[in-house]
Amino acid sequence: VTDWARLTIDAEELQNHIDRLGEVGALEAGGLFRGLYDRNWQRAIDLVEGWMAEAGLVARRDAVGNLFGRSEGTASSRCVASGSHIDTVRSGGRYDGALGVLAALSAVKALLRACGPPKKSLEVLVTCEEEGSRFRSNFWGSRAIIGKVLPSEARALFDSDGVGLGDAMREVGLDPARIPQAARGDIDAFIELHIEQGRVLEAGGHAIGVVDTITGMHQARVEVTGRQDHAGTTPMDLRRDAMAGAAEMVQRIAELATEMGRPAVATVGTMSVRPGAVNIVPGEVVFTVDARHPVPEQHVRLAEQVRRTIEEVARRRGLGLQVQPILDHQPVPMDATVMAAIEAGALAEGLDYLVMASGAGHDSQILAERIPAGMIFVPSRDGRSHSPAEHTPIEQIVPGVRVLARALHRLAY
Amino acid sequence: VTDWARLTIDAEELQNHIDRLGEVGALEAGGLFRGLYDRNWQRAIDLVEGWMAEAGLVARRDAVGNLFGRSEGTASSRCVASGSHIDTVRSGGRYDGALGVLAALSAVKALLRACGPPKKSLEVLVTCEEEGSRFRSNFWGSRAIIGKVLPSEARALFDSDGVGLGDAMREVGLDPARIPQAARGDIDAFIELHIEQGRVLEAGGHAIGVVDTITGMHQARVEVTGRQDHAGTTPMDLRRDAMAGAAEMVQRIAELATEMGRPAVATVGTMSVRPGAVNIVPGEVVFTVDARHPVPEQHVRLAEQVRRTIEEVARRRGLGLQVQPILDHQPVPMDATVMAAIEAGALAEGLDYLVMASGAGHDSQILAERIPAGMIFVPSRDGRSHSPAEHTPIEQIVPGVRVLARALHRLAY
Repeated sequence: VTDWARLTIDAEELQNHIDRLGEVGALEAGGLFRGLYDRNWQRAIDLVEGWMAEAGLVARRDAVGNLFGRSEGTASSRCVASGSHIDTVRSGGRYDGALGVLAALSAVKALLRACGPPKKSLEVLVTCEEEGSRFRSNFWGSRAIIGKVLPSEARALFDSDGVGLGDAMREVGLDPARIPQAARGDIDAFIELHIEQGRVLEAGGHAIGVVDTITGMHQARVEVTGRQDHAGTTPMDLRRDAMAGAAEMVQRIAELATEMGRPAVATVGTMSVRPGAVNIVPGEVVFTVDARHPVPEQHVRLAEQVRRTIEEVARRRGLGLQVQPILDHQPVPMDATVMAAIEAGALAEGLDYLVMASGAGHDSQILAERIPAGMIFVPSRDGRSHSPAEHTPIEQIVPGVRVLARALHRLAY
Repeated sequence: VTDWARLTIDAEELQNHIDRLGEVGALEAGGLFRGLYDRNWQRAIDLVEGWMAEAGLVARRDAVGNLFGRSEGTASSRCVASGSHIDTVRSGGRYDGALGVLAALSAVKALLRACGPPKKSLEVLVTCEEEGSRFRSNFWGSRAIIGKVLPSEARALFDSDGVGLGDAMREVGLDPARIPQAARGDIDAFIELHIEQGRVLEAGGHAIGVVDTITGMHQARVEVTGRQDHAGTTPMDLRRDAMAGAAEMVQRIAELATEMGRPAVATVGTMSVRPGAVNIVPGEVVFTVDARHPVPEQHVRLAEQVRRTIEEVARRRGLGLQVQPILDHQPVPMDATVMAAIEAGALAEGLDYLVMASGAGHDSQILAERIPAGMIFVPSRDGRSHSPAEHTPIEQIVPGVRVLARALHRLAY
C-alpha cells in the first residue's frame, strides 16, 4: 500500500522545464519550431536527456533518435512507458508534445521519490517526430517503435530545402539502414499525457479527459465542374454554377456532422475557384473535406453520407464531380486496462473527468497497434493549439500529472 | 417610300470582313487580343479605315482615337451613328465589339446603295476602347465622346508593363491634352449591334434581341471572419466556421436571384479561404458578389436583399463581417424612339424578336447619358463570349444587319 500523501509533483520544476524547453526553437515572430533532426530539435533532445540524467534515469537513443529515460524494474524485463513527441509544427506552442514528455518525467520522478524503484521498468519516452512539419513523415518516431518505418522512406522524403531525410539522419549521427532496430517488443503499456487542443474540457469544466478512442479521419479532395459563364448575361435558370453547387455541398456537409451530434465533426478547410473573376460564373471549384468520428460504424456512416450528399447535389444541379480520397484512418480504441488505470487515478484524485474521444491524431494511435495505450488530456486554454497562444496553467497540469503517476504506479509497481 | 426589296446586305463581304478583322491580334494559343493603342489595335483601326474609304465614307479619328466613317447628310448638320468597339479582352473572340462595327458598315453601305444619301449624316462609329483590358480604362472611347474623360486619367493609368496611358497615346500620335476635343454634341441617335453574350435568344429561338435596358450592376467584396480552430478537436456546436457561414451566404445569394426570377442574376465568382489547410476550420473567407437587375427598384431591392441576407447569416452564426462596395452602376434605359425604330425594323422583317435587358455592359450605356441610344442583339452560339469559342453564323447576323439598316433609315432619312 502506497502512502499517496507522499506523492508530490514538483510543480515549480515542471513549470521551469516547460519554460526552458519552450525557449528552444522560439521564433522572432512568435511561436516556435523544432523540425525533425534540425538544430533546435537536437538542442531540445539534449536538454531533456540532461534532465533525465539528473533524475537518475538511464538515457538511451534508438536508431531513429527516439529518446528513452529508464528506471530499471526490480521484478520484470518488461516495461511501462509514458511520454510524447519533442518536435513541433511551424509557429507552434510550448505544450503540444512537450508537455507529455515533461509530465512523464515529473510523474516518474515523483513515483521514484514516493515509492522507490518499480517492478516493471519505467521509461520516459520522447518520440523524435509526430507532426511531419519538416519532412512529411508523420509519426516517424512511434512508427519506428512498432517496426512500421521502412529504411526506404528515408530515401523518399525531402524537406522544403531539398535535404533528404536520410542525409538529415546522418547529420545527427543516425544510420538509415539501422531503422528496423528501433522496433520494441518489451513495452507492456504506454500512457501519453497531452493538451486537449480543443475546448471541450474547458467548456464543460472538466479537470481531465480520459481518452477512449482516437478518432477516425476521412479526408478527400472534391472537384466540382460546372460551366463557366458570363455573370451578367446568363440567367440563373440556365446556369451550371460550380460555386453555388459547392456552397450547397459545404453547407450540407457541416449540417450532416452537426445533426449527427458530438463527437462527429466535418470541415471544409480549403477551396479554390476557377477562373476566379468577379463577373464570371465559376466553371470549377475544388475543395477538401475532413470528416471524423471515433465510433467505427459512425465513422463509416459519416464518410458515406458526406459522399452521398455531394453526389446528390452534383446530380441535381447537373454538375460534374470527382472525389479523390486523401486519407482514411479508422478510429483507434485505447486499451481497456490502461484506461481503467487512468480512470482509477482520476477517481482517487477526486477529479471531475470526462471520458472522451481525441479528435486529433497522436503517437498513441500508432503505438496502440502493438502496445496497450491510453491518453490523459488536460484542458487547453480557449482550445488553442498549433499556435503561439497554446497555454495550460500549471494548476491544470499538476492534476493530470498526478493521475498519470497513479496510473503508472498501477501498471508498473 | 423606299423599295425595301432593293435593300441587300452583302453577306459574303460581311463574313470576309469578320474573318479578316478576326485575324488581327490572333494569338498562337487561340483567341485574340487587341489592347488599346497596341500594334494590333492600330492594324485593326487601319483596316477598318480602309474599308470605310472603299465604301465612300469620309474617315476621321478623334482626339482619343475613336474612328468615324461619315456619309454626309443632305438636309441637317446633325447625325445618326452606329457601331461598337474595336478592342478585345485577352483571349477574346472575333465578334464582341467587332461585329457591331462591321454590321454598321454593312448596313450603311446597303442603305447608300438602296436609298442614296441620308438627310442626317450617317456615321459608322468605332470606339477605341470598351473592355479596359490593357489599361483599366473601361469605356474610354465612349466616355470621351460624352466628355467624361479627364486628361488627368491618362497620367493615372498604366498597363501591366508599366507603360502609361498618356505615353501609349503619344506613341500613336495622340495628345492627352486634346482629350476634351473628342466630345460630340451633334449625334441625334446611336444604335449598337452586338452579340448577346448569353444564351437567352438561342434557348428561346429568337432571331433578334431589342435591348430596353442595360442592367444595373452591384459588386461588393465580402469578408467573413470566424475563429480558426482545429478541425478534429472542435465540436461543431463550439465552432465559428467562416467557411460554413460563407457557404450559406453564397447559396442564399443565388437563391435570392433565382426566386426574384429573370432577369435578376447574382454571382459569387471568387473566394479565398484562410488559413486554407485541410485540417483547420477556416478563420476567414473573402468572396465577391456580383448582382444585377435592369429595373431600378428591383436592382436596389436585390442589392439590399443580398446585403441583408449576408448580415443575417453572419449575425446568427456569430461571424464578423465587412462588406466593401466595388462598384454600383444603376440600370440605363435605352431611348424609346431608337427602340421603336429597331422594333419597327424587326416587325417589318417579320422576325421573332425579344425585348430584353442587356446583362453585360456596353458603350451604349455610356453614350445613353447624352445621346438617345439603342441596341440590337444577335444570338451567341451556346452563349459563349470573351472566349475563342465566340461565334454567330452569318445567317443569324444578316437579319440583325437588316433590322439595323431599317432603323437607321427611319432615324436618318
